[in-house]
Amino acid sequence: MKRKAVVLSSGGLDSTTVMAIAKAEGYEIYSLTFNYGQRHALELKAANRVAEVLAVKEHLVLDLDLGKIGGSALTTDDIGVPKARSEKKMKGEIPVTYVPARNTIFLSYALAWAEVLGASDIFVGVNAIDYSGYPDCRAEYIKRFESMANLALKAAVEGKMKIHIQTPLIDMTKADIIRRGVTLGVDYRLTHSCYDPSPEGKACGECDSCLLRKKGFREAGIPDPTVYDDLGSS
Amino acid sequence: MKRKAVVLSSGGLDSTTVMAIAKAEGYEIYSLTFNYGQRHALELKAANRVAEVLAVKEHLVLDLDLGKIGGSALTTDDIGVPKARSEKKMKGEIPVTYVPARNTIFLSYALAWAEVLGASDIFVGVNAIDYSGYPDCRAEYIKRFESMANLALKAAVEGKMKIHIQTPLIDMTKADIIRRGVTLGVDYRLTHSCYDPSPEGKACGECDSCLLRKKGFREAGIPDPTVYDDLGSS
Repeated sequence: MKRKAVVLSSGGLDSTTVMAIAKAEGYEIYSLTFNYGQRHALELKAANRVAEVLAVKEHLVLDLDLGKIGGSALTTDDIGVPKARSEKKMKGEIPVTYVPARNTIFLSYALAWAEVLGASDIFVGVNAIDYSGYPDCRAEYIKRFESMANLALKAAVEGKMKIHIQTPLIDMTKADIIRRGVTLGVDYRLTHSCYDPSPEGKACGECDSCLLRKKGFREAGIPDPTVYDDLGSS
Repeated sequence: MKRKAVVLSSGGLDSTTVMAIAKAEGYEIYSLTFNYGQRHALELKAANRVAEVLAVKEHLVLDLDLGKIGGSALTTDDIGVPKARSEKKMKGEIPVTYVPARNTIFLSYALAWAEVLGASDIFVGVNAIDYSGYPDCRAEYIKRFESMANLALKAAVEGKMKIHIQTPLIDMTKADIIRRGVTLGVDYRLTHSCYDPSPEGKACGECDSCLLRKKGFREAGIPDPTVYDDLGSS
């Protein structure tokens, strides 16, 4: 019987690469996507496409009420998504696209599902190199979450499973991630990264997420299949 | 300015006592209740009553999709709530009313709200003495969650706040909790504990939660105001 893995999927570049890695390692994939009041439904559509193309065993979409909590440009309309930030600025401060406790909430649901499925492995596409400065993307945080998880779950406390939070991308640059994904046959046209797409679904090309994506393809020397709204500036 | 506290509230005996304790300590209370596919809406009604009577600053109710994950007698209809378990049995095994990763999910949302509010303190009514054997009610788990939280939040990482998970009931017996609450003026008629109430809202009197509640009032020597369905057997 194949080992099961819960993979957090946003339909983005990182999580899709992670899913391809887990699949290549022989796991049966249970993809988990959150509908948390993103400003757009494109992320959910991308996650659906990815789940289909990568032939996951089950794809679960959970609705989260994060909009009622607020505090982020990604969950409320009161805060604008920052554009065209310099690389220096990106490295120096945590931006307003930070969603309070997001990965903690996401991983907590993953834990619950993992216990029900009997899946010891949870894959998450966090990355501490070419990332947006979120504290809950660092290895130190992930390790502490994992140790907490093994005190929280009945199956762990009873010795029936030990949770491993797998973060294969954590020390990779965006270019490395893209190269790895291409090797594994990932079609990045399926994926969606932009924080602030146009009504027709085109990536803005200027938010942190677009800037990191563009830079990654450029540095990897691989053509970027993304359709940007700011044609020519990529 | 009063210090703010997020208090997890289920409308039950423990969380209501915790709220009264936090209020007596001078905190401004933000109560957080989850609608997670409990078999009944009585918990939500009780939490609303408690929020009103204890004059909280804000009462937030979040809908959680735990029913889609399953794995518990409290979130699916496939598993029955156990009745009339002996005390020995209650101490010896984790029951089917265990909800996978429940406190981790609840506390994760509390973290998010605490960061947005600027509240360093989160109160939760976990209890490791007269409890149902859930692993995520133990001090060891809570401490690990707290240390994880302080790596997860932007405000914590930037040194603007340090999260404290406060568990004033953790070493108290149910009788101690009730005595403490009565001293603070808690009206336990407001609260609801039963896992499996009748359609009219009467407590079953036989689930673990009812048994612990009855025992607590008996040992505290305080009349139990609960209306039980199994009249006479308490």
